[in-house]
Amino acid sequence: MEAKILKSSKSFRVRFSEVDSMGIVWHGSYPLYFEDAREQFGADYGIGYLDIFAHGYYAPLVDLQFHYKHPMRLDSRARVEITYIPSPAAKLIFEYEIFDADTDCLIATGRSVQVFLDKDYQLVLYAPDFYTEWKQRYGF
Amino acid sequence: MEAKILKSSKSFRVRFSEVDSMGIVWHGSYPLYFEDAREQFGADYGIGYLDIFAHGYYAPLVDLQFHYKHPMRLDSRARVEITYIPSPAAKLIFEYEIFDADTDCLIATGRSVQVFLDKDYQLVLYAPDFYTEWKQRYGF
Amino acid sequence: MEAKILKSSKSFRVRFSEVDSMGIVWHGSYPLYFEDAREQFGADYGIGYLDIFAHGYYAPLVDLQFHYKHPMRLDSRARVEITYIPSPAAKLIFEYEIFDADTDCLIATGRSVQVFLDKDYQLVLYAPDFYTEWKQRYGF
Amino acid sequence: MEAKILKSSKSFRVRFSEVDSMGIVWHGSYPLYFEDAREQFGADYGIGYLDIFAHGYYAPLVDLQFHYKHPMRLDSRARVEITYIPSPAAKLIFEYEIFDADTDCLIATGRSVQVFLDKDYQLVLYAPDFYTEWKQRYGF
Repeated sequence: MEAKILKSSKSFRVRFSEVDSMGIVWHGSYPLYFEDAREQFGADYGIGYLDIFAHGYYAPLVDLQFHYKHPMRLDSRARVEITYIPSPAAKLIFEYEIFDADTDCLIATGRSVQVFLDKDYQLVLYAPDFYTEWKQRYGF
Repeated sequence: MEAKILKSSKSFRVRFSEVDSMGIVWHGSYPLYFEDAREQFGADYGIGYLDIFAHGYYAPLVDLQFHYKHPMRLDSRARVEITYIPSPAAKLIFEYEIFDADTDCLIATGRSVQVFLDKDYQLVLYAPDFYTEWKQRYGF
Repeated sequence: MEAKILKSSKSFRVRFSEVDSMGIVWHGSYPLYFEDAREQFGADYGIGYLDIFAHGYYAPLVDLQFHYKHPMRLDSRARVEITYIPSPAAKLIFEYEIFDADTDCLIATGRSVQVFLDKDYQLVLYAPDFYTEWKQRYGF
Repeated sequence: MEAKILKSSKSFRVRFSEVDSMGIVWHGSYPLYFEDAREQFGADYGIGYLDIFAHGYYAPLVDLQFHYKHPMRLDSRARVEITYIPSPAAKLIFEYEIFDADTDCLIATGRSVQVFLDKDYQLVLYAPDFYTEWKQRYGF
C-alpha cells in the first residue's frame, strides 16, 4: 500500500469571547482551533484522545508552534486544515493551516508534536503497538 | 464558640485576554475570578479542592449566579471578596463581591452552591464527617 | 400577529480543554455554550452582536445564572436550546437548556439578562427603536 | 551605557480550570502564563500593552512557540521568567522559561515575536520612535 497524505478539515466561526480588545482573535485562542482540528482528525481516522486512552496511553504535546499571518475578526468564518506528518519516531506530528473561509486567505500555520506516555506517565520510547498498526493501516 | 463570618479576599489585575472587543472584561471571565476566590478561601481555611479530594469527595457547583453592576476595563486592578454562607444542608455556599481596587466601586456580585459527590460520583445527602468537623471548628 | 415562542438550538461536542481534572466539563465552560446559543439565536432571528453594534448599541450581560443538573463528560455530544423571554423592559432575556444529545437527559439550565448601552457606554432606559421594531416583527 | 539583560519574573499557582482530565495543565493554558510574563515585563520596564497603545501602536504576536518539558499538576506553584531578546528589526522578541517553584525543575520554554501595527492596522517596517528610545534607554 502506498503512503498517502492524511488530512482533515474543520470549519468554524470566530466566537465573541475569542476576540480581544483590538477586535481581532486573541492569539491564545488558536490552541483551541488546533485542538479542534486534532479531534476532527482523530474522529476521521480512529486516533482520537479517547482511542489513545483506550489503548492505555496519553499523548501530551511537547512542541507547539504558531505563525500568525493575518488577523481574524469577530464573526469571521474560517477553516482549519490538519495534516499528519509521518515520522519514524514514537511521535504524533501534525501541521496546521487556517484559512479565511470567505477569501481563502491564509490566516495562520502551525505544527504540534505529541509523545506517548503510559498509564504511569512514563515516556514511551518505542511506538506503541496500536500506533504502529494504525500507521500500517494507512500505508506509513 | 460563637459563629463568626468567614471571609477571604484576593487582589487581581485584569488580563489582556479577559477583555472583549468592547474593551471590557468578558462576562465569561468572572467564573475564574470566583474560582480564584474559592481557592484563596480554601487555602485560608483548609477546605480547598485538594483537601476535599483528600477526604474522598468532589464538590462540583450546582448553582452559580452573577450580577454585573459595572464594567471592568483592561488593566483594572480589582479585589474579589468571598464569604462563607452557613447552611444546615450538605452544601458549600459562597457569596462574592468584586470591587474596583482604585475606586472601591462594586463591580459584580454572585453566589455559588456546591454539593458533595463521593468517589463513585454519587450525591452525598448528609454532610461528610470532615465537613461537619470543619464547620464545628469555626463555630457553625 | 400572534406572539409566538422564539427558540434556537445548537449542537456541540465537549472539547478536551473544557473538561476538568475530574473528567467532567468545568462549570466555567458553560458561559461559552450559552454564548454560542445566543449567537445562533442572533443569526436565526437577525439580532446578533453585530446587528446590535450596527444600530449603535452594545448589549452586555447584567445577570447570568446556571443550574447544573448532571455532569457532562469528555466527548459528550450535547444540544443547547435557547428561548427568548419577552419583557416590556429594555432588556434581552434568554433561558437556556442543555441536553445530552444521546440520552436527552437535561444537563443544565440557565438564564441571562442583557441591557442596552449606547456608544458612550450609557445605559439606555427605553428600548432602542431597532429592538422595538424587531419585537413587533415577531408579534411581541 | 552597556547593553544588559532585561528579565522579569512572575510567580503563579496553577488554577483548577487550567488542568485537564489527565490532571495536568492543559497545553493551551501556557499562552496565558506567557502573557502574564509579558505584562509583568511591560510593567517593570514601561513597555506594556497600554504604553504601546498610548504611542499609537498595537503589537500583535506573529510567532509563538512552546516546548513542554515536564507536566505541571493541580496546585503546583510555578515561576515564569521572561527575557528580552534584542534585535535590529522592528520587533519585540521574548524568551520564556517556566520553573516549578518547589523543585526548580524546568517545566517549559518558549519564544514569542511581536511586530508593530499602526492605528490603521498597517505593519510598521521601521521601529517606532518610542521603541527606539526605549531600547536606547536600556543600552540596546
